[in-house]
Amino acid sequence: MTDIRFSLHATEGKARTGVLSTPRGNIRTPAFMPVGTAATVKAMLPGSVRETGADILLGNTYHLMLRPGAPRIERLGGLHGFMNWERPILTDSGGFQVMSLAKLRKLTEEGVTFQSHIDGSKHLLSPETSMEIQRQLGSDIVMSFDECTPFPCTRDEAATSMQLSMRWAERSRAAFGERPGHALFGIQQGGVHEDLRAESAAALREIGFDGYAVGGLAVGEGQDLMFSTLDHCVGHLPEDRPRYLMGVGKPEDIVGAVARGIDMFDCVMPSRSGRTGQGFTPRGPVNIRNARHADDPRPLDATCDCPCCTDYSRAYLHHVHRSQEIIASMLLTWHNLRYYQRLMQGLRDAIATGDFTGFAARFDEERLSGDIEPLA
Amino acid sequence: MTDIRFSLHATEGKARTGVLSTPRGNIRTPAFMPVGTAATVKAMLPGSVRETGADILLGNTYHLMLRPGAPRIERLGGLHGFMNWERPILTDSGGFQVMSLAKLRKLTEEGVTFQSHIDGSKHLLSPETSMEIQRQLGSDIVMSFDECTPFPCTRDEAATSMQLSMRWAERSRAAFGERPGHALFGIQQGGVHEDLRAESAAALREIGFDGYAVGGLAVGEGQDLMFSTLDHCVGHLPEDRPRYLMGVGKPEDIVGAVARGIDMFDCVMPSRSGRTGQGFTPRGPVNIRNARHADDPRPLDATCDCPCCTDYSRAYLHHVHRSQEIIASMLLTWHNLRYYQRLMQGLRDAIATGDFTGFAARFDEERLSGDIEPLA
Repeated sequence: MTDIRFSLHATEGKARTGVLSTPRGNIRTPAFMPVGTAATVKAMLPGSVRETGADILLGNTYHLMLRPGAPRIERLGGLHGFMNWERPILTDSGGFQVMSLAKLRKLTEEGVTFQSHIDGSKHLLSPETSMEIQRQLGSDIVMSFDECTPFPCTRDEAATSMQLSMRWAERSRAAFGERPGHALFGIQQGGVHEDLRAESAAALREIGFDGYAVGGLAVGEGQDLMFSTLDHCVGHLPEDRPRYLMGVGKPEDIVGAVARGIDMFDCVMPSRSGRTGQGFTPRGPVNIRNARHADDPRPLDATCDCPCCTDYSRAYLHHVHRSQEIIASMLLTWHNLRYYQRLMQGLRDAIATGDFTGFAARFDEERLSGDIEPLA
Repeated sequence: MTDIRFSLHATEGKARTGVLSTPRGNIRTPAFMPVGTAATVKAMLPGSVRETGADILLGNTYHLMLRPGAPRIERLGGLHGFMNWERPILTDSGGFQVMSLAKLRKLTEEGVTFQSHIDGSKHLLSPETSMEIQRQLGSDIVMSFDECTPFPCTRDEAATSMQLSMRWAERSRAAFGERPGHALFGIQQGGVHEDLRAESAAALREIGFDGYAVGGLAVGEGQDLMFSTLDHCVGHLPEDRPRYLMGVGKPEDIVGAVARGIDMFDCVMPSRSGRTGQGFTPRGPVNIRNARHADDPRPLDATCDCPCCTDYSRAYLHHVHRSQEIIASMLLTWHNLRYYQRLMQGLRDAIATGDFTGFAARFDEERLSGDIEPLA
């Protein structure tokens, strides 16, 4: 197997487009990774996820280690075969979910002991166990184990947390070892503080990773503070490696983060919103539950080429969502994932042709223009 | 548009195979109709339903008249366009569901007044309103409005109920009128009593229908009584028209009913069972929730060509079902519908080649042979 390589094809300002190539396929950047928490992108078959244009999925270490268990997935041939997705998979380290979902957490230098939120069983997540679990899953892009810094927190808390994460990053690197065809990404921490972000980036560069994530954002700080942090924190990361903004985000967050030099994203928003009846469109989100859609023969998004928009009316989507039919989640999730992938393709094309600034301006103008006209 | 025509291609004993041709496509018989209650076959896209081999769907008048409403569906272009299924649709008359689901029912000679189980709104279902609603839906095969005879009931109750249904059948015929390209089926009643079944059949033949359903079975009487009733009741129906056994059933019910001269079936079992974790196989049903599947790398049904069986292990299905993931319902429903359609294809092929008796014997032998061997 070849190693994983990152090639930049074009830049415009800080925005970049390129390809991260892996033995399991190329990842076009800027890339959006649909979230497949429990070995499924909820309400989608993997072939349909691929049809939306996704090059890579994200899997959640915390969920999979608890159910069905990483050794079981390894025995069954790894996560790719288990969930029928042969293209690249990135797994998170479990660090974020263990702090938000697990019970009876205890944080030490060694790692985090906790009880499963599913059955109360006891577990340890540490740099070493996280690397082992992600190896058992067969992840192509492994994330180093870090502490999710709470928000808000004091500067001292952010510094202490970041420094622990950097010691864990070094242990993650050592535990990961040499695995041709598999990449290990480090995660920058430091909250919203530029000097801490710089210190974190320097520590990660010293250790050496195949890619670099920006962690600790999209945790409630708001878009302004996220963007102002990205303005200073991204520049400390190596230019020749992919940069991944974890857990982001809304379409407008993604456009703003690409403008600030980010290459990779993941977020539950398109799939989760689909299940709650929200559809993304170039003119902003639509709540299909609203009574005004009950008789509307028009598609959710007339510009979209997905089955939800080519085969069904807003009236139908309204009906099946109100009736709590599974097909509502299937169709709206498909559309939202397609919307995100079309956005990413638009960003890549715009950067490649030097039109990113214009693209971003048109994106904002259309998004703020309001939903389609009321039916006559 | 041409009229709807029924051609018998081969018979073996009472078993028959043929084609019911409609302007929207041919229906190969014996046929199984997946149930699309609320304008969706639950957890399936229509294209996938077609891929399982279904030639026709069933829609429920009662559910659709209450939500989203038949006039709305008519305004939106009819049920076919609304739910993106261009092939034939049979709609029931609402008579069965109104008795099992509606609140504050009042039965008179005119029809049934009731309150919606969804929002408490008041409605009337009668031969005339049922025909009008089914016309608004755009149904290809319309069912006459009948009373669902309770089970168990006395012979007198069965007679009184059947005679009311026959008066309603005549009103249904008159209200349906002449609609080229659309068929009206009558429904035989009479419980388990041969003389009442004969009287009902004679009344229906006198009125004249494009097809004949056997109603009032599969309501809790058990397979023995259902089969012994079919033994005498089917022969009273015209040979040159399709015969439809409503709401049936288990795979073994279908095989036994085909042996007794039935051509068409519908049942929620394959889709409902899929959502509760039951998968049909030639060796009997499998409960995927059972812990013995947790590590089983084998497909649900090694003989099946559906995506559930070609792309996933029992271990995966077990995991996603236990995790309450939507994909579990999607995959198991797809498999079960494919299982049913493969069974129907097997029945058609067997009758066409004079092998029906052998097919039925092999079907029983395999079904009773028990599930696949335990994993070594």
